[in-house]
Formats: sequence, structure tokens, C-alpha cells
Amino acid sequence: MEKVREIVREGRRVAKEDPRRVVHSFKVGLVLALVSSFYYYQPLYDSFGVNAMWAVMTVVVVFEFSVGATLGKGLNRVAATLFAGGLGIGAHHLASMSGATGEPILLAIFVFVQAALSTFVRFFPRVKARYDYSLLIFILTFALISVSGFREEQVLMLTHKRISTVIIGGLSCVLISIFVCPVWAGQDLHSLLASNLEKLSFFLLGIYISLSSCFIISDLKCITFFLRLVCLSLAGFGDKYCEAVGNDDTKEVDKRKNDFDNYKSVLNSKSNEESLANFAKWEPGHGQFRFRHPWKQYLALGELIRQCAYRIHALNSYLNDDTKVSIDIKKKLREPLRRMSLESGKAMKEMSMSLKNMTKPSSCELHVQNARSACKSLTNLLNSGILKEVEPLELISLLTAISLLIDIINLTEKILESLHE
Amino acid sequence: MEKVREIVREGRRVAKEDPRRVVHSFKVGLVLALVSSFYYYQPLYDSFGVNAMWAVMTVVVVFEFSVGATLGKGLNRVAATLFAGGLGIGAHHLASMSGATGEPILLAIFVFVQAALSTFVRFFPRVKARYDYSLLIFILTFALISVSGFREEQVLMLTHKRISTVIIGGLSCVLISIFVCPVWAGQDLHSLLASNLEKLSFFLLGIYISLSSCFIISDLKCITFFLRLVCLSLAGFGDKYCEAVGNDDTKEVDKRKNDFDNYKSVLNSKSNEESLANFAKWEPGHGQFRFRHPWKQYLALGELIRQCAYRIHALNSYLNDDTKVSIDIKKKLREPLRRMSLESGKAMKEMSMSLKNMTKPSSCELHVQNARSACKSLTNLLNSGILKEVEPLELISLLTAISLLIDIINLTEKILESLHE
Repeated sequence: MEKVREIVREGRRVAKEDPRRVVHSFKVGLVLALVSSFYYYQPLYDSFGVNAMWAVMTVVVVFEFSVGATLGKGLNRVAATLFAGGLGIGAHHLASMSGATGEPILLAIFVFVQAALSTFVRFFPRVKARYDYSLLIFILTFALISVSGFREEQVLMLTHKRISTVIIGGLSCVLISIFVCPVWAGQDLHSLLASNLEKLSFFLLGIYISLSSCFIISDLKCITFFLRLVCLSLAGFGDKYCEAVGNDDTKEVDKRKNDFDNYKSVLNSKSNEESLANFAKWEPGHGQFRFRHPWKQYLALGELIRQCAYRIHALNSYLNDDTKVSIDIKKKLREPLRRMSLESGKAMKEMSMSLKNMTKPSSCELHVQNARSACKSLTNLLNSGILKEVEPLELISLLTAISLLIDIINLTEKILESLHE
Repeated sequence: MEKVREIVREGRRVAKEDPRRVVHSFKVGLVLALVSSFYYYQPLYDSFGVNAMWAVMTVVVVFEFSVGATLGKGLNRVAATLFAGGLGIGAHHLASMSGATGEPILLAIFVFVQAALSTFVRFFPRVKARYDYSLLIFILTFALISVSGFREEQVLMLTHKRISTVIIGGLSCVLISIFVCPVWAGQDLHSLLASNLEKLSFFLLGIYISLSSCFIISDLKCITFFLRLVCLSLAGFGDKYCEAVGNDDTKEVDKRKNDFDNYKSVLNSKSNEESLANFAKWEPGHGQFRFRHPWKQYLALGELIRQCAYRIHALNSYLNDDTKVSIDIKKKLREPLRRMSLESGKAMKEMSMSLKNMTKPSSCELHVQNARSACKSLTNLLNSGILKEVEPLELISLLTAISLLIDIINLTEKILESLHE
């Protein structure tokens, strides 16, 4: 009983995280029920017979979450079926010319050579990345058609039926996935990058606040206060979240109090971004994106954002380190460090907003310039010799943190350049 | 023509990289030719008919590179087919009780509900990681059996044939993959970790050499000399590679001159390790591994090695940085730094060897202790005040490199502990 309740709770969480998942499940059920009607209606059954099964199989295997993935898989499947069907008929024709005893032997050799060769080609890295599925279908269709042809004499008819059912199955998947509540991989990739930028900005602003007040986050009340400060520094961005904090909507606050650790998800988003970009290539124009949108540039932008996240990850471990530098020196350093994190965080936030709304970032350049000038005053401060008295070993974590923050600002500038493209 | 030659070259490279790939391709061809003989031989064809097709499909889809992956997929497929077959028969029975008009409607509803529910469950993260394939087969088999039963009255017979052909196909895959030149995922995971350790050790010894001699690698001759120095420091490990360098086997040297950048592959080996560990769980005992070998510990060890590689990656960028620290200070620091990298590199190399041969690392502890004592003398040196005259900003890269090297030694110790387990 407890187990069932847990499963229901998990289901709710999964649905809440992305309600499109529920819609997708309904769509799959719908198409499958539709395609299986091939069996119910006499006229349709008469023309396709048992081959209607292939339509059902195609739907189950091809229907993916996003339009791009469905289109890519569908096209791959149809192309591989066509190609393998043609070759299969050829192989069958060749074999049938060699008499009753030669035929099975020749067919076995064909199947062996074809399967071994295709399996080997699947190990090629470039083929594996793009056409792994096509080759699987190729091996399958070739084996089924060249061999089953040995029994049923009308190989051509069989191949024709098999291909047309595969096309019908694939086409219904593609149509439903495009016209009923479509999930565009391109749009998802776009939003993913914007939200990644937002996560980083949130962390940087968090540093700014903790540098400003130097208190320790321990209980929820404290966190609410902390979040409110973050929101103050974000004022003007019209963030929903900030409104929630303003209205003391503890639920919303509670839900997002882990936001400061959220940047960690950016560290591992590479494979996700790559597969989304791969799917997006197949998609027709949609929303603000045209067909053949420069998705490669998104990957480059994603890489820059991730580089920034690596630095933030390292910075985080040094922030928790308790340096033995005297409070006096810390106070002097605080002002430029605060400005550096505040300005880079604001720049990041604005880039995220402008990416989301596909507008030009207006005051972003200004924020980056401010961060740069804060850098300069920090280095001037350091060169003025205030650290002369400190033991070098005790400087390690402080200096590393500073160099990481400078790195982050450099990367922010690069991200801005890449956005302009 | 040029294109063909390129493909052949690529094929040779893929085969050379791992000759087991060629063997695997032959195995797939063999099993497929074997299973398709169901069509040729009258007695077999009489008992299974068109259903023999399912054996062919199972082979194409289930036969994977390693034993573990094949076993896992095969068992999942058989279990899902059995379960969905049972449910499909039940659904068919229920529907057939509701009369000629009610039957297709009820069946469509069943298919819809089942497909929608299963598709939704596939979004659960834990299900996705383990049973994604089972659910796909479940949806497919249920739809095919409950619906096709509407036509062919002998649903039970059909289900029985379908399940037995799937079992035959799966079984032949599993048997061939276990008894003909098996590729064990567990063994592969084991070797992967050992070679990752070796890559790191090679890099650390490379630092040692470049600290010892301070020359720049520019042409091949120089590299050969450099590699010979690395080998000298590895003396006693009986490395094939070192023998090659000793004998001036330029081909071998040339092939492996990129070894110093090899550690980069360790950075991204996480997903590879995880899938290998996942497959290894399914494998029976083999070689020095028993069934239910603690593969989870391998993942923990892999994570430690990767953490070490992250540090090395960061260290690499600081090594290329030209510090403005005076040569005098550099000379003083060189001795402890050399010892730190040499000893940690040797410890790493020995751990790699002992992992490979599954023996206890004997002198490893000694190397770690030596590295530790070198750390101590370095910190003493730094605390003696030799850096007092240097500008703090110019210290950044030097101090960061030192702290990274200390980190690496700490991690080496942790890896050793984890090896003892």
C-alpha cells in the first residue's frame, strides 16, 4: 500500500515537472489505437493483412517526445526500410536463379555477410552518432525480406506492403507530433540555455549578498531573508520568483531554496544539449526559429556557459574554506569583490532574459564594463601591497577565488559576444 | 574513389582499436544466418510459420557487444513479452465477452490506456534508467497480441509461438555471446579503470621530467628523448611501451606520443563507466570476477580517479602559464615539486599495475608517504618566507599549481584506500 502511494507521488512529481509528458502519453495512446484500427476494419485488413503489424511496430518504436526526434527516427526508419527492401529483393532474385539446393545456402551467405558488415560499420564513431538506428533497421529488414521471400513467392507484393505500412505508421506519428501540442527540441534547447544562464546568475548574486552581510544560512527564516536580498539586487527584471518572495509565498520560496546548488546541473548538461541539438536539426521552422537555425552556435554557447559553471563549482569549494586572512584585509577586498559578483550576476541575468525573449541585451555591456573596472580596482588594491604581511600558504584560497572570479568575468564577456552572433 | 579509400582506412582503424569488434560482427552474422534457417527447414517452418520472424527480430535487437548487455536486454525482452502476452490474452478474453460491436471499441480502449500509461511510466527517472527497453517491448507485444487476436481466433497458440520464438532468438544470442569469444563488460570496466590510472600516472611523471630538465618539446627526436626519461623513471614496471622506447621503435613511440594529452579522455569517462557497471551486473562469474562482484565500488573508484583528472586538467593550464617568478625561487621550489610529482606518479602507476593483475600494491604506501614528506618540505620552504618579495598577483598561478598538486596527492591516498577495499 505504501509502495502504491509512493508510485502515485512519483507520478505526480514527474507530471508536474513537465506537464507535456502527460500530453505525450495521451498522444502515443491515441496514435496506437488509431493504427491498430487497421485490424478492425475489413477493407483495410483486406489490403494489408498481417502486415498491418508493421504499422503498430513503427508507431511504438518511432514516436518520441520531441518533434525532431520523431521526424529523425521516422525518416531513418523509412529510408532504411526502402533501401534494405530493394537490396533484399535483389538478393532473393539472385538466389532464386541458383536452383533449389543453392538457394538456401546463397541466402544464408547473403544474410551473414550483410549482418556482419553492417554490425561492423555500426562501430564507426560517426555512423554510431547518427545512423545507428538506420543500420539496425537495415539489418532487420534485409534479413526478413530476403529470407521470408524464400517461402512466400510474392516477394515484391510483400515488400510493397511492408514499406507502405511502415510509411503509414511513421507518417501518423509525425503528423500527430507536429500538429497536436508539439514539443520542439529546438525550443527546449533554447530554454535550457536561458535557464542555465539564470542559474549561474543566481549563484553570483548569492555571493554578492553573502559578501554584503556575512551571515550564515542556517534555517528557513534566514533563507527567506537571504532570498529577498537576492531579489532586491535583481529588481527590475520582473522575475516571478521575486514577486513570490515579496509576497512571502513560503511554498514557492521553499521550493526554490535549493537554487544556489542548481548551477551543479549545468555541469552535466552537455549530453542533453547535444541530443537536443541533434533532434532540432530535423525540425521544420517553428515559432521564432526557422529551418536550419544555427543550432551549432547553441552548442558553442552552451560550452561557454558550462566552462563558467566549472569555475563557479571550483569557486564554491573555496568560499566554504575558512581563510585565515585578517578581517581588516577582508574588509578592504570586499568592496571590489562585491561589485564584481553583482555586476557579472546582473549581466548573466540580463543575457538569460534577452535569450528567453529573443531581444537584444541592452544594458548588458554596461554591467560587464562595471565588472571589469571593479577587477581593475581589485588588482590595484592587491598591487598596493596590502597582502605583504600574510603567509603565502594562507593566501592560496583567497587568491584562487579571486582568479576564478576574474575568469568568470572574462567568460561572461565571451558569452555576450557569442550571444550577439 | 578517394571516399572509398577513406572508408577502408577508417574501417582498419576501428578494427585495430579493438579487434573484438570484428569478432562480434562475425558472431552477429552467424547467429542471424542460423536463426533464419527456421525458414529453410520444413519441419521447423511447419511448427513456427511466419512467427519465425520474431526470432530474427530478437537477434537483431538483442545481440549487443558485451555479454552483460546481451543478457540484460534478452532477459528484459523475454520477461516483457511473457507479461504482456499474458495481459494481452486477458484483454482479448474480456473484450470477446462483450459482443461483436463492443469488442473493437473495448480493445481500442485497452490499447489506448495501456500505451498511455506505459509511456508515462517511462518518464520516471528510475524506470528510464533500467527498464526503458522492457516497457517498449511491453507496449508493442500487448498491442500486437490483443489486437491481432481479434482476427486470428487462436490467440493462445499465437502467443505461445511468439514467446517461444523470442526465447529461441534470445537464447541463441546469449549462448553465442557467452561461449564464442565472450566480451565481458566487467572485465572491460576493470581494464578501463586500470588504464585511466595509468594515463594519470604518465602525466604526473611527465611533469616530473619537465621539472627536471626544463626543455621544450618541439620535434619528434626531442619527444623520443623525453619519453625515454619517463621510462627511466618508470624502470622496474616492465612496461611494454618502455621496451619499445628503449629499442628505438619509433612507430610505437610515434603512436603514443600523444599520451600526455590522454588524461583528457578520463574527464568524460563517467557515462561509459556507468553503462559498463550496469551491464556487468547481469553477468555470471568470469575470470577473477564472481557473480555480484561489487561493481558499485568500481564506480566510486572511477569517480575518485576522475576527480584527480579534473585537478590534473586545471594543473595543466597553469603549467602552460608563464609565471613571472624569478628563476632563483623556481630553483628552490623545484626539488620538492619534482619529488611530489614523481612519487605520486609512481604510486599511481603501481596502483594501475596491481589493479590490472589483481595483486596487492606492495610499495605503493611508501610512494605516497614519500610524496607526503615532499609536501611537508615544500610547505616549510614556503613558510620560511622565500616568496615575501613577490607581488601577490604573480603568485596566483604558482600557488594554485601547488595547491592542486597537494590535492592530487590527497586523492592518490584516497584511491589507494579504496583499492584496499
